Amino acid sequence: MDDHRDLALAMRPYRWGIATHPDKGPIDECGVFGIYGHPEAAGITHHGLIALQHRGQESAGIVASDGEALTMHKGMGLVNDVFDQPATLDKLKGHIAIGHVRYSTTGSSNLANAQPILVNSRKGSLALAHNGNLVDADPIRDRLEDEGAIFSTSVDTEVLAHLIVRARKESLEESVIHAINQVHGGYALLILSEDKLIAVRDPHGIRPLQLGRLGDCWVVASESCAFDTVGAEFVREVAPGELLSISKGGVIRSKTAVKAAEARPCMFEFIYFARPDSQLEGVNMHAVRKEMGRELAREAPAEADIVIGVPDSSISAATGYAEESGIPYEVGLIKNRYIARTFILPSQLKREAALKLKLNPLRKVIEGKRVVLVDDSIVRGTTSRHLVALLREAGAREVHMRISSPPYRNACHYGIDTTRVKDLVAKGREVDAIRDEIGADSLNYLSVDGMIKAVGARTDGGHSFCLACFTADYPVPVLENVDKFAFEGGKDGDD
Amino acid sequence: MDDHRDLALAMRPYRWGIATHPDKGPIDECGVFGIYGHPEAAGITHHGLIALQHRGQESAGIVASDGEALTMHKGMGLVNDVFDQPATLDKLKGHIAIGHVRYSTTGSSNLANAQPILVNSRKGSLALAHNGNLVDADPIRDRLEDEGAIFSTSVDTEVLAHLIVRARKESLEESVIHAINQVHGGYALLILSEDKLIAVRDPHGIRPLQLGRLGDCWVVASESCAFDTVGAEFVREVAPGELLSISKGGVIRSKTAVKAAEARPCMFEFIYFARPDSQLEGVNMHAVRKEMGRELAREAPAEADIVIGVPDSSISAATGYAEESGIPYEVGLIKNRYIARTFILPSQLKREAALKLKLNPLRKVIEGKRVVLVDDSIVRGTTSRHLVALLREAGAREVHMRISSPPYRNACHYGIDTTRVKDLVAKGREVDAIRDEIGADSLNYLSVDGMIKAVGARTDGGHSFCLACFTADYPVPVLENVDKFAFEGGKDGDD
Amino acid sequence: MDDHRDLALAMRPYRWGIATHPDKGPIDECGVFGIYGHPEAAGITHHGLIALQHRGQESAGIVASDGEALTMHKGMGLVNDVFDQPATLDKLKGHIAIGHVRYSTTGSSNLANAQPILVNSRKGSLALAHNGNLVDADPIRDRLEDEGAIFSTSVDTEVLAHLIVRARKESLEESVIHAINQVHGGYALLILSEDKLIAVRDPHGIRPLQLGRLGDCWVVASESCAFDTVGAEFVREVAPGELLSISKGGVIRSKTAVKAAEARPCMFEFIYFARPDSQLEGVNMHAVRKEMGRELAREAPAEADIVIGVPDSSISAATGYAEESGIPYEVGLIKNRYIARTFILPSQLKREAALKLKLNPLRKVIEGKRVVLVDDSIVRGTTSRHLVALLREAGAREVHMRISSPPYRNACHYGIDTTRVKDLVAKGREVDAIRDEIGADSLNYLSVDGMIKAVGARTDGGHSFCLACFTADYPVPVLENVDKFAFEGGKDGDD
Amino acid sequence: MDDHRDLALAMRPYRWGIATHPDKGPIDECGVFGIYGHPEAAGITHHGLIALQHRGQESAGIVASDGEALTMHKGMGLVNDVFDQPATLDKLKGHIAIGHVRYSTTGSSNLANAQPILVNSRKGSLALAHNGNLVDADPIRDRLEDEGAIFSTSVDTEVLAHLIVRARKESLEESVIHAINQVHGGYALLILSEDKLIAVRDPHGIRPLQLGRLGDCWVVASESCAFDTVGAEFVREVAPGELLSISKGGVIRSKTAVKAAEARPCMFEFIYFARPDSQLEGVNMHAVRKEMGRELAREAPAEADIVIGVPDSSISAATGYAEESGIPYEVGLIKNRYIARTFILPSQLKREAALKLKLNPLRKVIEGKRVVLVDDSIVRGTTSRHLVALLREAGAREVHMRISSPPYRNACHYGIDTTRVKDLVAKGREVDAIRDEIGADSLNYLSVDGMIKAVGARTDGGHSFCLACFTADYPVPVLENVDKFAFEGGKDGDD
Repeated sequence: MDDHRDLALAMRPYRWGIATHPDKGPIDECGVFGIYGHPEAAGITHHGLIALQHRGQESAGIVASDGEALTMHKGMGLVNDVFDQPATLDKLKGHIAIGHVRYSTTGSSNLANAQPILVNSRKGSLALAHNGNLVDADPIRDRLEDEGAIFSTSVDTEVLAHLIVRARKESLEESVIHAINQVHGGYALLILSEDKLIAVRDPHGIRPLQLGRLGDCWVVASESCAFDTVGAEFVREVAPGELLSISKGGVIRSKTAVKAAEARPCMFEFIYFARPDSQLEGVNMHAVRKEMGRELAREAPAEADIVIGVPDSSISAATGYAEESGIPYEVGLIKNRYIARTFILPSQLKREAALKLKLNPLRKVIEGKRVVLVDDSIVRGTTSRHLVALLREAGAREVHMRISSPPYRNACHYGIDTTRVKDLVAKGREVDAIRDEIGADSLNYLSVDGMIKAVGARTDGGHSFCLACFTADYPVPVLENVDKFAFEGGKDGDD
Repeated sequence: MDDHRDLALAMRPYRWGIATHPDKGPIDECGVFGIYGHPEAAGITHHGLIALQHRGQESAGIVASDGEALTMHKGMGLVNDVFDQPATLDKLKGHIAIGHVRYSTTGSSNLANAQPILVNSRKGSLALAHNGNLVDADPIRDRLEDEGAIFSTSVDTEVLAHLIVRARKESLEESVIHAINQVHGGYALLILSEDKLIAVRDPHGIRPLQLGRLGDCWVVASESCAFDTVGAEFVREVAPGELLSISKGGVIRSKTAVKAAEARPCMFEFIYFARPDSQLEGVNMHAVRKEMGRELAREAPAEADIVIGVPDSSISAATGYAEESGIPYEVGLIKNRYIARTFILPSQLKREAALKLKLNPLRKVIEGKRVVLVDDSIVRGTTSRHLVALLREAGAREVHMRISSPPYRNACHYGIDTTRVKDLVAKGREVDAIRDEIGADSLNYLSVDGMIKAVGARTDGGHSFCLACFTADYPVPVLENVDKFAFEGGKDGDD
Repeated sequence: MDDHRDLALAMRPYRWGIATHPDKGPIDECGVFGIYGHPEAAGITHHGLIALQHRGQESAGIVASDGEALTMHKGMGLVNDVFDQPATLDKLKGHIAIGHVRYSTTGSSNLANAQPILVNSRKGSLALAHNGNLVDADPIRDRLEDEGAIFSTSVDTEVLAHLIVRARKESLEESVIHAINQVHGGYALLILSEDKLIAVRDPHGIRPLQLGRLGDCWVVASESCAFDTVGAEFVREVAPGELLSISKGGVIRSKTAVKAAEARPCMFEFIYFARPDSQLEGVNMHAVRKEMGRELAREAPAEADIVIGVPDSSISAATGYAEESGIPYEVGLIKNRYIARTFILPSQLKREAALKLKLNPLRKVIEGKRVVLVDDSIVRGTTSRHLVALLREAGAREVHMRISSPPYRNACHYGIDTTRVKDLVAKGREVDAIRDEIGADSLNYLSVDGMIKAVGARTDGGHSFCLACFTADYPVPVLENVDKFAFEGGKDGDD
Repeated sequence: MDDHRDLALAMRPYRWGIATHPDKGPIDECGVFGIYGHPEAAGITHHGLIALQHRGQESAGIVASDGEALTMHKGMGLVNDVFDQPATLDKLKGHIAIGHVRYSTTGSSNLANAQPILVNSRKGSLALAHNGNLVDADPIRDRLEDEGAIFSTSVDTEVLAHLIVRARKESLEESVIHAINQVHGGYALLILSEDKLIAVRDPHGIRPLQLGRLGDCWVVASESCAFDTVGAEFVREVAPGELLSISKGGVIRSKTAVKAAEARPCMFEFIYFARPDSQLEGVNMHAVRKEMGRELAREAPAEADIVIGVPDSSISAATGYAEESGIPYEVGLIKNRYIARTFILPSQLKREAALKLKLNPLRKVIEGKRVVLVDDSIVRGTTSRHLVALLREAGAREVHMRISSPPYRNACHYGIDTTRVKDLVAKGREVDAIRDEIGADSLNYLSVDGMIKAVGARTDGGHSFCLACFTADYPVPVLENVDKFAFEGGKDGDD
């Protein structure tokens, strides 16, 4: 799937339109990073966040503690835009720090909703950074408001903050445990107090969270690529339902925070989200994706001359497809590395032309060829339709679309922003109808079994995944009120 | 070759250092774009410059004419930073426009030197945008100064402006011809007057310049990828020594501006500069580079398990090497797409660690393997050394470096900024010594003959190239005073 | 007193220092503005805030409501910096709005503490804008935290928000009344809900708050100059302890919120804070200050040749002194109108020289003269010392300092930021000692009786004032814990 | 005259208008400052420019030399905006510097036209900073262009640069002398080379230029207030037609550059431009203006209750009028010190209301009174009309306008931007008609004789002035082509 999926062209009421194209279209989430025990904790966190930048480009923030006070800096934009002054990092003094990159899953996109959030309370100052989504945040927020609580943001992280502070427990750890036993969903949560760093993962382990070691320091991060970037060693996954608490002297303690349920890590991390150089649940993302491509070639062969992948996220799968099928892999689409998130579009350029700013087909490679175009997924289908048209325009004789995951048909309720279900091209459509919609000569998706097999072939084990977006089998029950939410999300013109 | 070559870490005198890493290290040039006859000429030029952004990220500018007056906007930074307001483009009214992206080859990096340059004179208002370098700009500038001319910039484009204005010729075309017959070097030059767009290419055709067609409009650009981006058709190369003049009604006229010498297009455009989706001299860059990889595999085979390319510029060559050698191609280095040109580096992170922010090796792919690492060129060698170390650290058993061009040993004097000859790792070093310098188990370069054969295999013809950087055979004689210039360029600390 | 009191020269650790000079030195507070019923409520509020800019230059913010939802924009800096785009104001839709300009009295200076504050709760969305200080905010905050409340800011306004939301009352008005009966201090508070604008003033009326009328709309503001600026008519003072509620159809209701105590408006508003063109408690500030100057001339005559006032705030008093004494008034100090809040200071310039950037004595006027220098107050004394030296340097034969208010000896606990008691030059010093400290030939302050008489001569009545900063007679008892606060405030290096 | 004369309300095509109000309306010029011999020359120049900020708020720039190379920084905006980073000043190394603040008199308002201008030539690098206007710049520019010169800006300073460089003279001094003998007009010119600072004043001394001494350093500035600000001593006026050259060791040489004509310093400097604390031609501006007010009271007495001055520029004259007439001086108009140059204006606010943002009448002072309103001049009359209306609205019974200079009827061609002659309210109107136009009960101007007498009373001598704007007696003949220029300047909509 193209990293810059559908180009939403919000034409302004004057002559030049601004084309906004969210980096990952309707599919986004967040990334977290934390470190305990480093004299430049904020600086290391800054680099960790750069490594996790693909998980959220909307806002970035860091909170550090020197053992006595918490200091925060956050802002809208990329990590390097928010932290563009050495003086800014200098102010974030201390040996403990947590950081966050965000793409909104709950709450609208503005500074008030940027994370971490920092609160003062009877438990002292607390900062929270959260990747995921609580399915019952709304009713709990209602209950808390009924009890007199006030909210400054619209993110569910603030609900967690209230629950933690209200817990009448001796220790912060017990309070956190008390709090998360009242909520349900998928989450990876970091909590910073004056002298502790706490990390918790949801009982199904839906959202990723990992533990690493940098010299004498403990680090936690959404993905192992952040460890590589700061020079840390991967230690292990935080277990589903586990709470890790790191305190004075770097002492680390593990507790069962929530009774662990069956592990159900999010499959979409393996398909698209995580960086190809990250390891999740013991496997490397690039390798898994290549294997998915191989499996796809076995399940859905094609009579074709070349295999092309949509850059950047589908290159791994495309090379796997090529190797297995024996059809030569070719670089057929060139991506402009300098396209900013927004750019100005002359009104006379057709909207389709906007895609050409980002991706250019290599006519000499494509002309007269029967092309297998491998993408990792199709969400709204708009980009796929444009891509097929682009290839045909560049002379492709046939375009056979192959998707290295099953049809994406259901909203995610655990932290991925695809709740506008009605926009999903596969929602209520058979594969043939989708093929017609995007204009390909043929279209095949990888089967659910094939996908699991591809991951399993690497994990040497039969552990489960959250496959809700493909199968509607939700590991955490979705409450009634979410229907309302999904409905709201689906209304027209809401962005 | 890595796009972000050597990381120059200019440590500031306070705690956090700023790591500046010029996108293409010591090798850069410029890009030009022009259009005649479009109601949104500046808007189209804006998109054309985005397509040419890889040719210069230091400054960007556009001048437009509505037939009566020229208006200009230029600034430091990327195209999208300089043109981030629709109102800015709105002010650039008119149906003719030229644009420029720059990385300094002459003159220091500041706004005064950004292009296009705009002057008022007895020939009216003129704007000039220039890619290339004049070898005799300095003595001519001295002569002009002796005659009383004053200069506001330090770019050689201003020398051309003076020569054109001083030419006592009837027409602007004749004046341009008179001017360029007084200079020598490699250049692609666009000139905009109130009602004309003129394009000229040097007599050897060293720097690229092409003609395209967008509906009824003529477009000119450094590379054909800009035509694809704006939806224009490639028409032909501007011929060496040719002047094209487009005026009222879109009438285009061709003249021989300088007696054409043997065509000697710059080989380094084929190796590294031009975007893989561009066509130059009838061949596609990706295809040429892949063929160079194939030829390299034939010339310098390796006993190895996998082939890896340095992203992004060496992927084409690496896949060619893999296909020819039969050794599997693998994605072994993951590039962070969000690294800005400058970022803050905590002082405790070793400098080598800075590379990890940009490139992360895939341990699972590399571990225990004998690796062929394909790069398109080595300039200073620093990045190569770090890359080899990175691969070893990730478990590579052996690292065999293969370069898809010959050793880069001589300064370019025609528009590529590698005049700090002493920094070239291949200057005065045999290949064995370079291999030791970068720490590889083996090192091989593509031969000059192999390189020409690779290009020729695609061009079906034996035409020549400028190979001065490899062979010191300079098609345009380099003046005495350039030694001085090279010497100055080589002094320490001038960054 | 000079508007730009003592120049705090925070020298940076590199060659050029940055001289920060807060516009009113250690004495500052806030301003509030609100409007109900105007289609451009945010725009009117914007202009109202510009008129109140002298009350706070640190941050500015506006919240508007269209009857259904509240939208907010706030930021650090002057009103015109925060609202520098028409688009920003366009987003603040609705017919009701409140705005705030701030100089920190509680909480540190950062965006989180900027006002208005906006919260979501069981009472819907509420925005609060507050000028003043609660003496018991800390223990109440402690109690609320004990009960599980969390705080996102360090301003006492958030304490009020909690109390209002927690009140188990039917109406918002009753909730506000319930809340403010739990707190003590000096305050002028505006509250905005989806469909109401509520204004409350503390029971002593310490902080100013006034009601005005703009066509069919109601407006409220700290000072009447804001009414003049937006073209509104002054209606009346909000009474001490009164709550005004404006709702649907512009219906306004008045309630007694707190049992009104003796009216004790802050005398320092009359001496320095309020703009000279504002009316407070029925009198014009310029007229009052001129009368204070007259009274001062009667109490403390001087043998002198000319009278000079410190621009801008002391001009009124100086002209009064001159008229009463018969000594000619002269313009002796010229103020540079373009001095920004921060500027760069070459290291070789002595710190005293920084004052010369701001104020230049008129040698021709001063030379050889015996000068009466009238200032409205002395806080830290540093600027006075520099001014006396400046006049002597310009040739003054004698400098007789006359202050149109009594010695400022005690911290304000009702909204003026002078809690660093130890910095007050008059704290624990007799007038003679102060005179020696500042180097004047003579020094006299206006007596408390004279000051009251001056105001009274205009008010035709003997109503009381808060004179705590002069007499230590605090109308609202100051709690124990404030000592702690004062202590903290007094520690070194907390800048 | 109000510093912020007529509010030009350029309504944008969307809901909120932007009100731009140039600080001094149609009347502006420039300021220059230079220093030789100080280790922080750029820093001192920075402070000198802050002192001269009232002479130009459009752009600011400094060029420094360390004896070998010139470095420059300039930008649009106030001095403190352009130089807001210590690092910027740090880069301007050297012991010699010149600086400039600009309001455009020739050339449009953009960065290309900001000064100083810096050129490279056979005479090395030269920087020029210029206050004034050449009446024959256009024909000379035409001639230079005919000879092949090219121009990068539209300011006449570049014409001077060409003339200096073209002069075939041994020394820079001789070249400057050769150049300025070819031009005519009013000018104060600073020229910086690698090792020299040269200052020249026009033969009539129309524009001011003064010499001062700071320790061992020489300083030159447009006004003496800049000397006071940097702690320098005033030495003397640069004589009309004199060239001062300061070189190695601080050696200063004086030459007659142009045969000095009768001294005719610009009278408008005395009336309005120069800061009240500056001395020009031996007299203090405040004192002169006060004397003008006295003379005006003698010439044009009024039956009135109070005298009010328009802040800030007319306060001196108003106090003089009050003292002489015996009518009490009152502060009747309060100016908002925080009004930025541009602000957003809600569309429903009438344009007149914009003035209220800036000036607020003191009703308690004005109500029921017969008011003498003293202003230093009337240019377009719009502000005067609004002011009279404002005073009547505030209850003034009668408004008697008194202007402390004669009617301003003719364009200045020597550096003051009032060439839009048709906008001058006094052009072709008798005083009675002007009175009706502005709506005052009576209107009187100071006579030319009275004005000269007022200045003379202080200068003890009968030297002449340039009075062209009042009398059309132009000391330097205005060329034919200037009519064209004036015509162009007068065309509508050229804002």
